[in-house]
Amino acid sequence: MLIHLSSWPEIDARLNDGGPLSKTVVVPIGSNEQHGPTGLLGTDWLCPEIIAHAAEKIDGGLIVAPTFNIGMAQHHLAFAGTISLRPSTFMAAITDWVSSLSRHGFERIYFLNGHGGNVATIEATISEIYAEWSFVEDQPPFILKLKNWWDLPGVHGLCTRLFPTGHGMHATPSEIAVTQAAYPERIKTADYSPQIAPNGPIRDALDYRARFPDGRIGSDPAQASPEKGQQIINAAIPALLSDIAAFAAETEAGGPH
Amino acid sequence: MLIHLSSWPEIDARLNDGGPLSKTVVVPIGSNEQHGPTGLLGTDWLCPEIIAHAAEKIDGGLIVAPTFNIGMAQHHLAFAGTISLRPSTFMAAITDWVSSLSRHGFERIYFLNGHGGNVATIEATISEIYAEWSFVEDQPPFILKLKNWWDLPGVHGLCTRLFPTGHGMHATPSEIAVTQAAYPERIKTADYSPQIAPNGPIRDALDYRARFPDGRIGSDPAQASPEKGQQIINAAIPALLSDIAAFAAETEAGGPH
Amino acid sequence: MLIHLSSWPEIDARLNDGGPLSKTVVVPIGSNEQHGPTGLLGTDWLCPEIIAHAAEKIDGGLIVAPTFNIGMAQHHLAFAGTISLRPSTFMAAITDWVSSLSRHGFERIYFLNGHGGNVATIEATISEIYAEWSFVEDQPPFILKLKNWWDLPGVHGLCTRLFPTGHGMHATPSEIAVTQAAYPERIKTADYSPQIAPNGPIRDALDYRARFPDGRIGSDPAQASPEKGQQIINAAIPALLSDIAAFAAETEAGGPH
Amino acid sequence: MLIHLSSWPEIDARLNDGGPLSKTVVVPIGSNEQHGPTGLLGTDWLCPEIIAHAAEKIDGGLIVAPTFNIGMAQHHLAFAGTISLRPSTFMAAITDWVSSLSRHGFERIYFLNGHGGNVATIEATISEIYAEWSFVEDQPPFILKLKNWWDLPGVHGLCTRLFPTGHGMHATPSEIAVTQAAYPERIKTADYSPQIAPNGPIRDALDYRARFPDGRIGSDPAQASPEKGQQIINAAIPALLSDIAAFAAETEAGGPH
Amino acid sequence: MLIHLSSWPEIDARLNDGGPLSKTVVVPIGSNEQHGPTGLLGTDWLCPEIIAHAAEKIDGGLIVAPTFNIGMAQHHLAFAGTISLRPSTFMAAITDWVSSLSRHGFERIYFLNGHGGNVATIEATISEIYAEWSFVEDQPPFILKLKNWWDLPGVHGLCTRLFPTGHGMHATPSEIAVTQAAYPERIKTADYSPQIAPNGPIRDALDYRARFPDGRIGSDPAQASPEKGQQIINAAIPALLSDIAAFAAETEAGGPH
Amino acid sequence: MLIHLSSWPEIDARLNDGGPLSKTVVVPIGSNEQHGPTGLLGTDWLCPEIIAHAAEKIDGGLIVAPTFNIGMAQHHLAFAGTISLRPSTFMAAITDWVSSLSRHGFERIYFLNGHGGNVATIEATISEIYAEWSFVEDQPPFILKLKNWWDLPGVHGLCTRLFPTGHGMHATPSEIAVTQAAYPERIKTADYSPQIAPNGPIRDALDYRARFPDGRIGSDPAQASPEKGQQIINAAIPALLSDIAAFAAETEAGGPH
Repeated sequence: MLIHLSSWPEIDARLNDGGPLSKTVVVPIGSNEQHGPTGLLGTDWLCPEIIAHAAEKIDGGLIVAPTFNIGMAQHHLAFAGTISLRPSTFMAAITDWVSSLSRHGFERIYFLNGHGGNVATIEATISEIYAEWSFVEDQPPFILKLKNWWDLPGVHGLCTRLFPTGHGMHATPSEIAVTQAAYPERIKTADYSPQIAPNGPIRDALDYRARFPDGRIGSDPAQASPEKGQQIINAAIPALLSDIAAFAAETEAGGPH
Repeated sequence: MLIHLSSWPEIDARLNDGGPLSKTVVVPIGSNEQHGPTGLLGTDWLCPEIIAHAAEKIDGGLIVAPTFNIGMAQHHLAFAGTISLRPSTFMAAITDWVSSLSRHGFERIYFLNGHGGNVATIEATISEIYAEWSFVEDQPPFILKLKNWWDLPGVHGLCTRLFPTGHGMHATPSEIAVTQAAYPERIKTADYSPQIAPNGPIRDALDYRARFPDGRIGSDPAQASPEKGQQIINAAIPALLSDIAAFAAETEAGGPH
Repeated sequence: MLIHLSSWPEIDARLNDGGPLSKTVVVPIGSNEQHGPTGLLGTDWLCPEIIAHAAEKIDGGLIVAPTFNIGMAQHHLAFAGTISLRPSTFMAAITDWVSSLSRHGFERIYFLNGHGGNVATIEATISEIYAEWSFVEDQPPFILKLKNWWDLPGVHGLCTRLFPTGHGMHATPSEIAVTQAAYPERIKTADYSPQIAPNGPIRDALDYRARFPDGRIGSDPAQASPEKGQQIINAAIPALLSDIAAFAAETEAGGPH
Repeated sequence: MLIHLSSWPEIDARLNDGGPLSKTVVVPIGSNEQHGPTGLLGTDWLCPEIIAHAAEKIDGGLIVAPTFNIGMAQHHLAFAGTISLRPSTFMAAITDWVSSLSRHGFERIYFLNGHGGNVATIEATISEIYAEWSFVEDQPPFILKLKNWWDLPGVHGLCTRLFPTGHGMHATPSEIAVTQAAYPERIKTADYSPQIAPNGPIRDALDYRARFPDGRIGSDPAQASPEKGQQIINAAIPALLSDIAAFAAETEAGGPH
Repeated sequence: MLIHLSSWPEIDARLNDGGPLSKTVVVPIGSNEQHGPTGLLGTDWLCPEIIAHAAEKIDGGLIVAPTFNIGMAQHHLAFAGTISLRPSTFMAAITDWVSSLSRHGFERIYFLNGHGGNVATIEATISEIYAEWSFVEDQPPFILKLKNWWDLPGVHGLCTRLFPTGHGMHATPSEIAVTQAAYPERIKTADYSPQIAPNGPIRDALDYRARFPDGRIGSDPAQASPEKGQQIINAAIPALLSDIAAFAAETEAGGPH
Repeated sequence: MLIHLSSWPEIDARLNDGGPLSKTVVVPIGSNEQHGPTGLLGTDWLCPEIIAHAAEKIDGGLIVAPTFNIGMAQHHLAFAGTISLRPSTFMAAITDWVSSLSRHGFERIYFLNGHGGNVATIEATISEIYAEWSFVEDQPPFILKLKNWWDLPGVHGLCTRLFPTGHGMHATPSEIAVTQAAYPERIKTADYSPQIAPNGPIRDALDYRARFPDGRIGSDPAQASPEKGQQIINAAIPALLSDIAAFAAETEAGGPH
């Protein structure tokens, strides 16, 4: 059930039908940022959206929120098309999403993340949200969880097998393959030089562009193909459904809320 | 040119090709909120996205940012599936989008809005952004513009002709028709009671739900059809392209920046 | 009853006397900003103050707060004497006024506004305040209302009759006339060139000054006179009292709080 | 020259006339809060306004801003009519006033304060403003000064002579006398019990009301009279003008800016 | 009992042992900033730490928090080694300390301060914290108190007797003597020129450095000695214990909480 | 060179002596939070302080800032003595430390961290700080680095060898051993039950206390000894000095600043 293509009575009914996933919502979250000479700027929000929507097609009981499409990408700002929130803004926005979803009775909020650069800020936000409860000796009516799609069981291993060299850290063949599977008409090519991009630390935007002139880090995206992308998606779907089922079944310590 | 389906070199080339729209970007912006018994929760961000993407198909020179899909919908929070930012969060997020787009050289940022409840906060944000420059006697390198899609020349008149009675203020047949044209497989039906919803002031969420029990204000969405939606889209496309062309050609007072 | 010229026991008694306006307070709110070659910098906060104080003289049951005299005037900052709050600051300050007045038991807070540039930010603030309640499924103990003095029934029509041409948008003859009626010793004259000022969009301060060199927008303030100002005040007083009486009698949906 | 009753060209001319006070502005600043059974709620902003306006009548070269009429009065919130800003809001608002006035070329901003409870927050704000410059190794184009009206040379001594006992800390006969001189038609009386109010620490609003049931601290306002108020005003005027003249003539270390 | 060298069960037991100081905690608070040619940068946080830890050795019932070692020192930023918080940051941090300590049941929080420049911001913070309760008609479960160590009874008089001339305002011989007593191996010497530093107003960092080239204000630190420092510490210890005992015994108005 | 025990001319001289570490500063950063039945509440800020101060004794060229002793510990707030900043406060405070240190010319700021719960917020802060530069196409004059002391080369391996079982995640024998080596007079004992604490996810404070009743996660602190602590310190010192030397020698991409 995609929230944005549903009516409110449909969501309301689902929330109250007593099903195992009825109080759980998945939020695809990513970033809109450069992904090298050929990667889509939307790669990092499209990947979790692609996987979550595919999983929802398998199990219609899954409730999927609209995609949180702009994240923390300050280091990519020297490349055209990147849009970034400051971490403090990102935190405020995630907080309001959680307040909204919790308001409706969602007790398990699962962020399926597509951007490594989001992780620290999302975790800091989760602590900021919990802190409101911790300071006043009360328990929040929800549990928050962050999962990167490549950390779903089996996915990382598959990516390593598909791309034993040149996987790298940014504009990886695996993420580009996932978008190629979903948007085959948008596949782009380029002569990469060097074939495998350099590695190095991530700092501010100008430093980034000087170190990584075409935007890639350690990757050779030429290895991507729609077929490999579909393999990754196919592996991610059951892993996601299983992970969410386990999350939905978790209890808060001290007993169910 | 949809930013999220482009690579950064594509956007970079477009920004520097000297074309009349090369420094202009359109941001579809809306809200994810209840739209009555049958309207999609995503209606208010889908409508400007549908229109902007359709316009981009006509004129590939148009640069369209990802859709800003969550807005100011506090009054709808008593209906499941609504997600709202507080105005202060909304302001921070819009500010960061503008900072990002301006960083790349965009000099005209055009917000195509799909939610009446966003207007005050977007305008306040524009003032907040301009104020940073006004306080220090400097001129911003960009012009910001807000336009509701229903205020595009010719669109409001068409909607009035299509729906002379029961257009209303929220969950209107015109916006629902637009989404029906784009997502015909998601058309929902209901017995509306009353056929035309009541009117009244908009305040907090509980007050709203008590006044407008099924979420609609003054509207009869049963009149919507995909055909009428397509008519509206068809009217909006040239109006949008023309409005953006005029905006792109505007100069800041004091001469071009 | 002007709060600032009353003692706390007087306000306390009034709040608890069961009268129809006992839980209602009017806050004159405006801006301190340039009003062309002859208009007073205080015009926008003086006008609602003049009208509210005049109404209080007619009906001593009306409780009037001190005047909120600085608003959102970033676009006027290129003209000496203008003082502006950033929208975010303005929002915080209005919020604290509401918290204070609500703390004492005021259930209806009526902002009588004198500056068009304030409208978006005041409305965004009202949403920000209501949002605190909407997120937690609770109802605020107050209703907030914004009314521009020129939108009081009958006032706009009178202004149009008095000044059929050259009324304009800023430094209008009607607002200047109101201040002339109240401060006749402060009437100033100038040779306006052009007689009727140009129109155009409002952006940042430097853009504004380039477009509107003497500060006026579309207006010919030479038409103002104290007599016309008094006519406007006389029309506004009963309209204000009547509007407030209706507001005080309103109930929140869901029944009286 | 009262800013709010002047036009922008008048202020502009004054700023550029090279006079000794041309770059200096006085901001009367106070609070709207209970002042015991008989004191006006506006006492703390009326007193500096009365003194500053009286001084401006003597020396028309003095530029006086509108009165900043709401300050930090959280401890008085248990008494009807009190309006308070949180310190953080107060800081933001003062900062925007300073940014606005500095924008026009004012180089000396003098806050004439009427409320002891404002002092800490105004001083913290001054540090916050200076810090922006201190962190970046730059010098601000203005000097900020806070002066309580009762600390003007000669004023405190006069108050002590007029009211040797029962002056107290809040709702003092001296501040009430000043408002009686200016608003004789608003003089109120009460039977004070005890005649001289108790003393004690200032904490939150409920604690305050329990300690000081009628709002006074250590004072006997029955001693106030309009005549004594006028004496105080008369003493304050030359002291203020002299203090401002000295302030206007001060240089920033490192030479004139 | 030093919190940071205790385990949580030890603090927990102490909080619940019913002793006269069991609900009271002392927070040494200061600043890390230049103290002239010879003073330690840590002087202002070391002094209250030295005194509080010494007092805790005498009365083990005293609970002492870790030292809050960075305060408001924007005016010292032109001297190497100074670290300052902006007042707004300082306020947020103190607020979180109070929230944490109150969470555990501490009802009396005593800030033993070592930096005059902290006073305004700490007082503004206390008002900010109380305001949260004052706005909602509730009473905080704690009392907050700020005391500068030199204002402890008897201490100021002793300092005046020890240093009748050249005590000054910053980098005073008394504070330097206290650190000499505690860190005799860190005593530094210099030829002071002039022997007694100048006086003047405190503004931004560049202004400060121009006025006070070696950082001192009005002081002759050459008079400091470890022996005099020990005398001051010895005077401060009983004064602190006595002041805290009185504070712990205070009740909130309206009865014990 | 410990900043807080130095004078400003000493730091100034060091900053300008051209030595390899002259522009580098180490900030020990941690948390004050429960560490099980026997661990010191200060463990997480004492450990990096102990190691950094020990390293400074070996190489006096190392500049060490005062210890940042309160971090992000919201999940420990159900245990007495824990003091936590909200992530947003933590971010503001770190930002001010960086602004202060950078103001003096430090170009490499090295956070030696002692608390796993700090990592996400410190990383988010680093992004927030860099973002200020990335948005405006400028390069910061500093590089920021975060290193947990247990991640220093060789340290983690040693800890694993010393404590092959029962090392765990919180209140580990390795961190407790380090504090035992430095504060042998503060060694505490307890009967642990179970000997090795349970594992589980970290959420809010009440959830934490329910899962981990005595505060430990997965650890058996009974294995700690001062001797083992000294071994760890001895391993950490050269690793830290070597890591800092490499950091100080790094260049920003695009050449030295």
